[in-house]
Amino acid sequence: MKKLWALALASRASSRAHTVGPASGPDHSRHTGRRIMLPDDANVAGNVHGGTILKMIEEAGAIISTRHCNSKHRESCVAALARVERTDFLSPMNIGEVAHVSAEITYTSKHSVEVQVTVTSENIITGVKKVTNKATLWYVPLSLSNVERVLEVPPLVYVRKDQEVEGRKRYEAQKLERMETTWKTSDTIQPVLNTEPYTIGYSQSSLIHLLGPSDCSLQGFVHGGVTMKLMDEVAGIVAARHCKTNIVTASVDAINFHKKIKKGCVITISGRLTFTSNKSMEIEVLVDADPIVDHSAERFRAASAFFTYVSLSKDGKTLPVPPLLVETEEEKKRFEEGKARYLQMKAKRQAQLDAIPH
Amino acid sequence: MKKLWALALASRASSRAHTVGPASGPDHSRHTGRRIMLPDDANVAGNVHGGTILKMIEEAGAIISTRHCNSKHRESCVAALARVERTDFLSPMNIGEVAHVSAEITYTSKHSVEVQVTVTSENIITGVKKVTNKATLWYVPLSLSNVERVLEVPPLVYVRKDQEVEGRKRYEAQKLERMETTWKTSDTIQPVLNTEPYTIGYSQSSLIHLLGPSDCSLQGFVHGGVTMKLMDEVAGIVAARHCKTNIVTASVDAINFHKKIKKGCVITISGRLTFTSNKSMEIEVLVDADPIVDHSAERFRAASAFFTYVSLSKDGKTLPVPPLLVETEEEKKRFEEGKARYLQMKAKRQAQLDAIPH
Amino acid sequence: MKKLWALALASRASSRAHTVGPASGPDHSRHTGRRIMLPDDANVAGNVHGGTILKMIEEAGAIISTRHCNSKHRESCVAALARVERTDFLSPMNIGEVAHVSAEITYTSKHSVEVQVTVTSENIITGVKKVTNKATLWYVPLSLSNVERVLEVPPLVYVRKDQEVEGRKRYEAQKLERMETTWKTSDTIQPVLNTEPYTIGYSQSSLIHLLGPSDCSLQGFVHGGVTMKLMDEVAGIVAARHCKTNIVTASVDAINFHKKIKKGCVITISGRLTFTSNKSMEIEVLVDADPIVDHSAERFRAASAFFTYVSLSKDGKTLPVPPLLVETEEEKKRFEEGKARYLQMKAKRQAQLDAIPH
Repeated sequence: MKKLWALALASRASSRAHTVGPASGPDHSRHTGRRIMLPDDANVAGNVHGGTILKMIEEAGAIISTRHCNSKHRESCVAALARVERTDFLSPMNIGEVAHVSAEITYTSKHSVEVQVTVTSENIITGVKKVTNKATLWYVPLSLSNVERVLEVPPLVYVRKDQEVEGRKRYEAQKLERMETTWKTSDTIQPVLNTEPYTIGYSQSSLIHLLGPSDCSLQGFVHGGVTMKLMDEVAGIVAARHCKTNIVTASVDAINFHKKIKKGCVITISGRLTFTSNKSMEIEVLVDADPIVDHSAERFRAASAFFTYVSLSKDGKTLPVPPLLVETEEEKKRFEEGKARYLQMKAKRQAQLDAIPH
Repeated sequence: MKKLWALALASRASSRAHTVGPASGPDHSRHTGRRIMLPDDANVAGNVHGGTILKMIEEAGAIISTRHCNSKHRESCVAALARVERTDFLSPMNIGEVAHVSAEITYTSKHSVEVQVTVTSENIITGVKKVTNKATLWYVPLSLSNVERVLEVPPLVYVRKDQEVEGRKRYEAQKLERMETTWKTSDTIQPVLNTEPYTIGYSQSSLIHLLGPSDCSLQGFVHGGVTMKLMDEVAGIVAARHCKTNIVTASVDAINFHKKIKKGCVITISGRLTFTSNKSMEIEVLVDADPIVDHSAERFRAASAFFTYVSLSKDGKTLPVPPLLVETEEEKKRFEEGKARYLQMKAKRQAQLDAIPH
Repeated sequence: MKKLWALALASRASSRAHTVGPASGPDHSRHTGRRIMLPDDANVAGNVHGGTILKMIEEAGAIISTRHCNSKHRESCVAALARVERTDFLSPMNIGEVAHVSAEITYTSKHSVEVQVTVTSENIITGVKKVTNKATLWYVPLSLSNVERVLEVPPLVYVRKDQEVEGRKRYEAQKLERMETTWKTSDTIQPVLNTEPYTIGYSQSSLIHLLGPSDCSLQGFVHGGVTMKLMDEVAGIVAARHCKTNIVTASVDAINFHKKIKKGCVITISGRLTFTSNKSMEIEVLVDADPIVDHSAERFRAASAFFTYVSLSKDGKTLPVPPLLVETEEEKKRFEEGKARYLQMKAKRQAQLDAIPH
């Protein structure tokens, strides 16, 4: 281990080594994107869609991790999104504000890169700035000459030893979680006829999108951010149908990207309510890819996630959410699982609050 | 009848057969797309552009027909739009509503696929749903290895014999119409100087557009829906220039796509008024493709159509349209032809109304 | 002068004063945007359109100058683009590269803000970075409560005295130039019939565009960058029609924005060749705004500019440009004026080269 550390330190001398730590990194170890929010980025009430923000976050992550993975002048590669950790939307972003997306590489394993991203909204007229959310993304480098081959990641240089230790813990934790979720991919959302308001079938929705060139990287597979934006769009439609008010994304559970989706595929994104609390809705979203032109390829599950939405009044206050009517055994089971996730998250937040010294 | 039904059931066992009929088809014989309408999809008054809807319709048609044509595991192909039947815009769609585009294959000839599409607007807050329009599109499968070659279409399985008989009638009718329109392609819209309000030259407009990657399929030719959206854009500008009010698309005549347009072409889309009634305007739109970089290729007429627009007051009531000033013999001839189309359509609608039993 | 300097220094103590100088400014006196270049940003050969870059430059300028003009907590305002100085495209940008747009406020007059912007391309796989162009933009702050009223600009604090002196020189120079160009606005591009290759009429092109919400600021007038992108699009089509090869923007002359253009306007953008040298083409582009729905408003000239394009072979080498056939006296006059601009620019560059010490 010591040897690796020495190696890492030695490589720091080279012009393109990456360092993590307070203000010590060279220019390319950080990435900041900025963009004015346009009407099309937002809902009718002017709140920028969670999906728009997720897309910006992923673009920043893809840039910084691709740059890092090519920094050793070895085999050329492109970083593909493998996973996004759970992220909370802390404060709304509005049309006309500037979104700042700041990304930093915080850990590298042999085959993956962890990127932490902070999004800030700035009202350039009043000068008010707010953190809207923070996210953690995992990328893997794929060889440009053969995108099926995962390459090794140049090791990150840590300013403090504990940064590496903490990073490894996060790496191990997500690895465990990813293994647990894989078996779920057999689930599907079936169409339901003749539905009543507040049932799952009533608000359940799906959309289909043909992946075009600007949805994809030059290497011909879809940007993770494009998929997340579409997932948020479906989840938002489900939520609005259920409570018939203005709704906004409150959080997104960890999303695993099981498989690359190629340009020219048709993707089907389906969403259904799984759970409602007094003030929130949980929506499960499934992404399936269908290579319509390629005979040899089968339709496959490409990603899945849980989105949490809240309902807002016209002046931006949270409203009560109508309770979900669950009918079948399957629905009751999913509701209980959603409730467990909800209670676990609530307990976790309480623990964090309690940990703040008085 | 019973035999066909049995046949249909038998074929249903096969993995990718397509069946048409009441809610009996497997998943891939139908296609439903959904999208929230954004500010850029609409005019300043919030009415979604007819062109936006036409583009969504065509995308759904292209997906379902490409999927069907590849369903027999023969040569890979992509479905290209050959014709759109006349379509009426029955009720407006607004920003913030969800557009549902539901497509179904309803007939196949040896070399073409008929797709019927229904568009519904849903106000997800009030729950109100309205059919905004229905359209019929014809596609032909082009080989992926040589897009100049038209392939055979896997035959559709009909639930009822009359579905096939009715489909064949529609197929023959459009074939006849297409032959009639081809001679018209020599017409051009010439620029006019020093024009007076309410003349044809005053409102006549044209735009050029360089076809970029997102306008085109992966095989490098433009999506029919992109062309239709631009046609509607020009027609709308002509209509607005004539009556200086908020205007909306009321209907589009059948559009034939005479020839594929390749990526990198510049297309010129020109529109001029041909006829005005008390409450409507007819605009002729011509599409010409100019393969600017390819020395060997000539500029050619790629499509043409008549759009009908109505003028709306601020509260959405139809307004009288200022009468068109026709001057030359040529203009008078086109006005009379437009009037004939108008009266024919009016008579047809009256006949449909009379046919409804009291 | 000394008093003003003292005043400037005093105001520096306040929390939101802006300082110009080497790395000394607070965070908000600089702005850096970054974005991956997508297929839709580029031509078929993969070169990013000059117009895409101009649009990014203007967005960065609008953000930084709006932020500065609101920094004194007086009347709220938004910065509108008044002028862009001549800019050269020094090296091409390609699809898949990251564009870095770095903006800095470099001078303020009573009613205007000068912003200097540098654009760098970064290939995140090879690590190669190149400056693609530098630009200087002038903004004026318009009151939010009445966009017809120009507000005062908070004075910039200069690190070195000569920064202010040089800035004032640039300010005076552009003021002079603006006055000279106003008389030209009566020119129009008339349609020409029956044209031969290499004449001006043959390649002359125009497009119309209805300004939608995402083209405009929240205050309802078009972003300068949107207009510049469309101007470059027309100029590129003119150039490609003339030489039938892959073409790229080499430079843009100073552009003055004479008047604000409102949402809902139709803008007509027309371009024609004025001059060709052995290796370059000069294209004049005129922008006219037509407030089609507003009866009281007249069509007006909103901007005009000269774009210079070069023709490229498939491997990126500059090709000879076919000589322009000028016919009328008017055309000959414009050709000679273009030639004078070309020779003047050539002499200026030679002088810059000679000024480099050996």
